Amino acid sequence: MKTSIATVSLSGSLVEKLHACAAAGFDGVEIFEPDLIAGDHSPEEIRQLARRLGLSLDLYQPLRDLEGVDDAVFADNLRRAGATFATARRLGIDTVLVCSNVATATIDSDEVSAQQLRRVGELAAEYGVRIAFEALAWGRFIDDYRRAWRVVELAAHPNVGVCLDSFHVLSRGHDPSGIADIPGDKIFYLQLADAPALSMDVLSWSRHHRLFPGEGSFDLAGFVRHTLAAGYTGPLSLEVFNDTFRQTDPGHTAVHALRSLVWLDDQVAHTLTEATPPTGFDFVEIKAEDTSEVEVLLTQLGFTPRGRHRTKPVSLWSAGAARVVLNEQQARDQVPHVAAIGLQVPDAEATSRRAAELMAPVAYRRTYAAEQPFGAAVAPDGTEMFWSSEPAWVAEFERGVPQGPSPVAAIDHVNLTQPWQTAEDAVLFLTSVFGLSAGEPAEVPGPTGLVRSQVMHNADKSVRLPLNVAPHILDGAGLPQHVAFSCTDVLALARAAQAAGLQFLAIPDNYYDYLSGRFGLAEDTVAELRELNLLYDRSPHGHFIHFYTRTVGTVFLEFVQRFGAYDGYGTDNAPVRLAAQRGRLGTVRT
Amino acid sequence: MKTSIATVSLSGSLVEKLHACAAAGFDGVEIFEPDLIAGDHSPEEIRQLARRLGLSLDLYQPLRDLEGVDDAVFADNLRRAGATFATARRLGIDTVLVCSNVATATIDSDEVSAQQLRRVGELAAEYGVRIAFEALAWGRFIDDYRRAWRVVELAAHPNVGVCLDSFHVLSRGHDPSGIADIPGDKIFYLQLADAPALSMDVLSWSRHHRLFPGEGSFDLAGFVRHTLAAGYTGPLSLEVFNDTFRQTDPGHTAVHALRSLVWLDDQVAHTLTEATPPTGFDFVEIKAEDTSEVEVLLTQLGFTPRGRHRTKPVSLWSAGAARVVLNEQQARDQVPHVAAIGLQVPDAEATSRRAAELMAPVAYRRTYAAEQPFGAAVAPDGTEMFWSSEPAWVAEFERGVPQGPSPVAAIDHVNLTQPWQTAEDAVLFLTSVFGLSAGEPAEVPGPTGLVRSQVMHNADKSVRLPLNVAPHILDGAGLPQHVAFSCTDVLALARAAQAAGLQFLAIPDNYYDYLSGRFGLAEDTVAELRELNLLYDRSPHGHFIHFYTRTVGTVFLEFVQRFGAYDGYGTDNAPVRLAAQRGRLGTVRT
Repeated sequence: MKTSIATVSLSGSLVEKLHACAAAGFDGVEIFEPDLIAGDHSPEEIRQLARRLGLSLDLYQPLRDLEGVDDAVFADNLRRAGATFATARRLGIDTVLVCSNVATATIDSDEVSAQQLRRVGELAAEYGVRIAFEALAWGRFIDDYRRAWRVVELAAHPNVGVCLDSFHVLSRGHDPSGIADIPGDKIFYLQLADAPALSMDVLSWSRHHRLFPGEGSFDLAGFVRHTLAAGYTGPLSLEVFNDTFRQTDPGHTAVHALRSLVWLDDQVAHTLTEATPPTGFDFVEIKAEDTSEVEVLLTQLGFTPRGRHRTKPVSLWSAGAARVVLNEQQARDQVPHVAAIGLQVPDAEATSRRAAELMAPVAYRRTYAAEQPFGAAVAPDGTEMFWSSEPAWVAEFERGVPQGPSPVAAIDHVNLTQPWQTAEDAVLFLTSVFGLSAGEPAEVPGPTGLVRSQVMHNADKSVRLPLNVAPHILDGAGLPQHVAFSCTDVLALARAAQAAGLQFLAIPDNYYDYLSGRFGLAEDTVAELRELNLLYDRSPHGHFIHFYTRTVGTVFLEFVQRFGAYDGYGTDNAPVRLAAQRGRLGTVRT
Repeated sequence: MKTSIATVSLSGSLVEKLHACAAAGFDGVEIFEPDLIAGDHSPEEIRQLARRLGLSLDLYQPLRDLEGVDDAVFADNLRRAGATFATARRLGIDTVLVCSNVATATIDSDEVSAQQLRRVGELAAEYGVRIAFEALAWGRFIDDYRRAWRVVELAAHPNVGVCLDSFHVLSRGHDPSGIADIPGDKIFYLQLADAPALSMDVLSWSRHHRLFPGEGSFDLAGFVRHTLAAGYTGPLSLEVFNDTFRQTDPGHTAVHALRSLVWLDDQVAHTLTEATPPTGFDFVEIKAEDTSEVEVLLTQLGFTPRGRHRTKPVSLWSAGAARVVLNEQQARDQVPHVAAIGLQVPDAEATSRRAAELMAPVAYRRTYAAEQPFGAAVAPDGTEMFWSSEPAWVAEFERGVPQGPSPVAAIDHVNLTQPWQTAEDAVLFLTSVFGLSAGEPAEVPGPTGLVRSQVMHNADKSVRLPLNVAPHILDGAGLPQHVAFSCTDVLALARAAQAAGLQFLAIPDNYYDYLSGRFGLAEDTVAELRELNLLYDRSPHGHFIHFYTRTVGTVFLEFVQRFGAYDGYGTDNAPVRLAAQRGRLGTVRT
């Protein structure tokens, strides 16, 4: 697979974009004309820079509003096309993208469009370039790839072919299986973009909300298979207009983008080591210069101190199958925060290979002989992800207390608040590297804005990672994270923790009055929930009881019990929790 | 008119919201149930707080998914309704909003819904409350206000009426004239929201993009007129779900919100002093601790120093009818920025009265006897707006040079970059206080994200104020502003400025190569544009030539000439300008 990307998908200047694409490892790029025009480097300089960087220049784009017009307009369009072809030649690019006419088309005729495209193809041939004709989803008359192909077929010129763009085909719900009927050598170019399932006008959807493959709801593997079946041998190129990527670091976006193509290629042709999803949480690591406040919480919640690491300022706490590592190593000035998540995987070696193949940045930690090595990668939000097949590392902790029984069962989920800049990347990272699935996105109203939430999980949900994207207003503030533990008896745990002096996140009385009316709970049930600051939720499948600790640094703990087949997270209670965290103990901002 | 607002329209805690509404001057509020539940204050405490603040509590909302269900579900719903009515009574609220069933309705029958609403009405009566039934635009079966009224009519219970919400009616394109057929005393409540013309699913549109009256595309004056014609005498209440208002200061939003209602009332009933739109720019003020760099620019551009103010560290420069005031008063540590805009108005007294009626915050400046007083207000972005009918103030400047001829004609437009927090408010402020019109919003791609742009203007376009909303990534960075001057001969001006040593914003060669191909301009024309760093645009109505200076502080200057009936701003050139400002002379960030 030859990989490419349109420069419009990245932020910055054209030169910055080319460097970012080369550094990420792309084979080539499409040059977006406005990027060239706004830049200080001549086409020849760009051509040389690309050569030095080892990037091919695959496409020059776009030439707009060319066909379906009257003769006078066409004469001017032809002059305009000639100028574009001249620039493409100066760039050393042999293919120019022509979009179907949106603005100036007045003649709705395959024959007229074909005749005009043929004339443009003849002109292109004089410049040694060819044109790839693409049906925009909002084209005035030609808005379907099948019609674009019909026109190209009628044009019958060797320098006239089609460009296929997954967004324009799949956003309209057009059946992509017809692609296989186009001769492969007449498909001059293939552009790929994913998109979330949104119901909105297709132009806004395209301009603001495209995503990289694997992040949306399109079947891109199927789309690519149809194109390869047709005999297409050119690059798989990304063209992704997205409000986030337009603003964020092009180096980061380019790696993210290439990962999506590598993942897609694997979906199509099984090119990577097979994903072996995690089977459970191994541990969560909370890091700080001083973790003693977290130790107080864990003690009050009945966790057992299992000892200190034999070589590092790190301690292990456990309850049931839940392990929490407190790390004070290289943590100067850091407040408590979730620094790492350990996952149990069936084959650590295989996971490491796959992570490397998907260009996951490796997380390095100082380790010594006789310590268990972990597979390790840095997630887009900076959280370190570790994996191993056997928790032999537990034996590295010494002088601890043996673990007794506890109402805590395991780590239920770890909630990572994402900066808006990396939210999409995080989804792709977790699905591609670890084979996790992404749940439906939801929105939770908080006192200072909507929080967007999406849960990443393995098949049996023994690993759940809800990703929350905070409102813009919290940019730069400490982003809260939390660790939730499942319990076999959350009421008993809450009662014991209360006796041990735990400071619960205080839930207002009004909530309990509401709860009683909402669910028709018995008075003594509500009284007990109220006394222990417990929250309650119910679904058609079961119910849910949970409570929160105060926030320490940027992290707080949650304890949950799922009754019946309740599968949620008490999302309806999130506004109450967010308000309580804002108003009283702890704080969302730090 | 009695004014009210739903607490869901504001950010913060319920207590913060009530204080914000009272401070702004609202008569009452609707209590959004989740705001109560998440808060620390009991319903009785909220009731007392509202009384102390002089706010009536007009509505408790919402009670969801009540009717159109089978008997078992209805029995549980009735219990739930009773709990809500009990809370409403504790709050001292006599009206509860019931939304049409979205989630659980299984029976599509007016009779069943009416019978169930009647039963709910009977229960409500026991609690001394009444229910206002509202058709949600996405209701399962009842999604039209006419059907909601039919059901209410069938229910035939004194405690059952309708609630009308402009969004739910107008977003579906339903004809609001049927409102006049509903007896006024059966319209229990009226909720108002505006919205931009968007083509997207109505639920997302409603949840994220509602606006205050006057900021969107709905005919709210007509909607209110129909409701008043029906005999409705209750409050005009705002219910606006919007991603921005959810995040920003509730005190600011409450004033903004009330201004929208005052404006709407004026649209309906002409309650305010009539708007007398400005007839032109009087001056632009650039303020800094040291304005000398701006003086260099103005000198190079042929502006005449008209002298210093007789009592203040302020100087006046002019060219043609354009006046620029440079202000070093109370400007310690400030870099050059557009601090104020002076407008010529036909009746300064009337404008001042209207500004006060619309709660525009007054701008105070130190003035002395024998100085011309201005009407003055602070726009939402902090820019001070001044107005007067006669520029007698010019005579306060002494020891200047008499003005000679100049290719500069007047101030063409002043471009104010808006923080995203105040973009909507700015539109309402300028339309309501000054009677300006808002153009269609447009989007401009810049190297670090899309810039949203909307032009505010008077009828003859002698006053144009483009408002730009910068990408989130620039939050906290200095926001660039610019002043554009119209010219009678922009080429002559550019040539003279070049000879005087002006540092133009340098435009890349590629742009001129493109220009030549794009518009088929003559070679010598392009050569001249290139030599002088001039930009060019063409529309079906004429063409446009313009150039920019480097950025000083956060402000740069533009000089433009419109040929024929060209009416734009060279928006297609904005990406080139933004890239040049980012990469070379001057910078977007400061």
